[in-house]
Amino acid sequence: MSRPAERRAALRSRAAAEGLDAVLVTNLLNVRYLTGFTGSNGALLVRVDGPDLLGTDGRYTTQAGTQVSDVELLIDRATVPALARAAVQRGVGRLGYESHDVTVDGFAQLEKVLGEAGTSPELVSIRRAVEALRAIKDDDEVESLRRACAVADQALAELAAEGALRPGRTELQVGRELDARMLALGAEAPSFETIVATGANSAIPHHRPDSTELRAGDFLKLDFGATVDGYHSDMTRTVVLGHAADWQREIYELVAASQAAGRAALAVGADVVAVDSVARDVIADAGHGEHFTHGLGHGVGLEIHEAPGIGPLGAGRLAAGMAVTVEPGVYLPGHGGVRIEDTVVVTDDEPELLTLTSKELLVL
Amino acid sequence: MSRPAERRAALRSRAAAEGLDAVLVTNLLNVRYLTGFTGSNGALLVRVDGPDLLGTDGRYTTQAGTQVSDVELLIDRATVPALARAAVQRGVGRLGYESHDVTVDGFAQLEKVLGEAGTSPELVSIRRAVEALRAIKDDDEVESLRRACAVADQALAELAAEGALRPGRTELQVGRELDARMLALGAEAPSFETIVATGANSAIPHHRPDSTELRAGDFLKLDFGATVDGYHSDMTRTVVLGHAADWQREIYELVAASQAAGRAALAVGADVVAVDSVARDVIADAGHGEHFTHGLGHGVGLEIHEAPGIGPLGAGRLAAGMAVTVEPGVYLPGHGGVRIEDTVVVTDDEPELLTLTSKELLVL
Repeated sequence: MSRPAERRAALRSRAAAEGLDAVLVTNLLNVRYLTGFTGSNGALLVRVDGPDLLGTDGRYTTQAGTQVSDVELLIDRATVPALARAAVQRGVGRLGYESHDVTVDGFAQLEKVLGEAGTSPELVSIRRAVEALRAIKDDDEVESLRRACAVADQALAELAAEGALRPGRTELQVGRELDARMLALGAEAPSFETIVATGANSAIPHHRPDSTELRAGDFLKLDFGATVDGYHSDMTRTVVLGHAADWQREIYELVAASQAAGRAALAVGADVVAVDSVARDVIADAGHGEHFTHGLGHGVGLEIHEAPGIGPLGAGRLAAGMAVTVEPGVYLPGHGGVRIEDTVVVTDDEPELLTLTSKELLVL
Repeated sequence: MSRPAERRAALRSRAAAEGLDAVLVTNLLNVRYLTGFTGSNGALLVRVDGPDLLGTDGRYTTQAGTQVSDVELLIDRATVPALARAAVQRGVGRLGYESHDVTVDGFAQLEKVLGEAGTSPELVSIRRAVEALRAIKDDDEVESLRRACAVADQALAELAAEGALRPGRTELQVGRELDARMLALGAEAPSFETIVATGANSAIPHHRPDSTELRAGDFLKLDFGATVDGYHSDMTRTVVLGHAADWQREIYELVAASQAAGRAALAVGADVVAVDSVARDVIADAGHGEHFTHGLGHGVGLEIHEAPGIGPLGAGRLAAGMAVTVEPGVYLPGHGGVRIEDTVVVTDDEPELLTLTSKELLVL
């Protein structure tokens, strides 16, 4: 059974357990996860009894046929209504749908189409059932994440080796070179808008690179990632240019200690709020609690931010196969800041570190 | 008045005309259009009487303050509920919302928050009111599109000049170099997943680049664009490698004639279905109607596909300031295909061509 077929089987079990006859999956990333289809228009009908149906439009007939060999295709420009009609024709009585994805207009259209088709099935939210499956990565997904992380590691290593991270260059130049390098190394795209923040800008957690020049004695914070097979890596490294002052070494070592504690806490069954606390306490105990202004981490996969969230407002426990970031930071407004972030997979044994760039304080 | 302030004023007029007290804008691109804010979490309350309110979370306090100087900020992780509560506090009775953007879950949450806040405002769909404003580009937007198109033109010119489009190279290599080149020239990102299709693959309208090698005598179809200031360019060129056979020249000249006819039909007041027909008839009259399997074009701007659609199923008329693509194609399955596409702005005078790469049949 192909990986996507295994995932559809898991969703089928879940649907059967909830008394549904079928599930209409509209979230495009969920469709990709369940079929392997990467087109920009698609929806999927997963049926408890009988074959599933992938809907897309004529632009993607060839691509869908190649990428998805084990699901019947329904080619129709109006993908979702066509699948809804097909569900009725196949006698679906209780139809699950993704209430976090279907819009108010989309729901009204769905109700109209089902009404017109005669015996109107009952629409039942499956909530984030597919996202819950996606939170646990299978071996193929972990391998894609490994490759995505390796591209980011390699891109940064090359840039550093070539002396591209030197005083006089701008944040924008560095960001663009990092992006171009990741593409040259096989990334489909950067995981998100690359963050390059130097000097006082490094104290802004999500600074957009601008024409600020790198200067000796400043922090340089790089938060970036590569997308490979649709999977996102996410890594932050903070270096110092020229020479490191005492206050820089101090907060760097503090963040590094917090990050190591957070990684060590990534055990199967660990509560996500407790994991956040372990890392946060290290920073709070040093008197910098107010300077760590965000959660500790988040799941990564087909989305750059996905389940589980690891932070004071999170909920739930870690499970083997979850891929998450660990990224504490200390930001001194107007002065400078440090964040250190890895992508890590939770396992029954030690957590597997996927971003392998050194976390020693690098003075360039 | 800043451009975003002008746009908010236009939305305010529309809201007042519909008897609304305020509009809650949740679509992130619409928020960007109306404020200039580019963060990944934001929503906007536009009030008919009184100051507007931009909601975002703490990661973006600095960025929102810099990008949006003329709208009050509301910092709250739960952006939309916080704005809804603020609307109630400010006495909003009829609240417009984007029913094509708010999900079923989001709507339920909105109703809950409004109910808890006491006097529950009436929620009224404003449909695609902001998208309708966005369909007409102002001078700043056209300038961004010009720059986005110039980056794509320049990237292709450099690649061709360096001999990168030669037999033996793969579609994937060419696509990645085109992307890297656009980034180096200042693009924020490619507009979409770059299409590189050679030989029989060129007959697939939306082929994903793979390891197929370029070969002498084959078509090479490149469909790509650059994003600058968030605005997307979109261009397709088809070249021949080595030498052009008669059948290739024939369908190339046919598509070029259709494309020229389509561009010439881009007049203020023209019906979008009629514009499609003008170009389609050229191809149908030559007996290739069945080989032109998609619409003629679409609006481009903050999204790669936006209003207006120009095709047999479109509706409405062109107006000055609309930026659209004109992209007929002829695809001979298993054999090869040609598409020629420009990004063009409708004006009261001649349409302005933004993608300036030659459309003469290029034999490389």
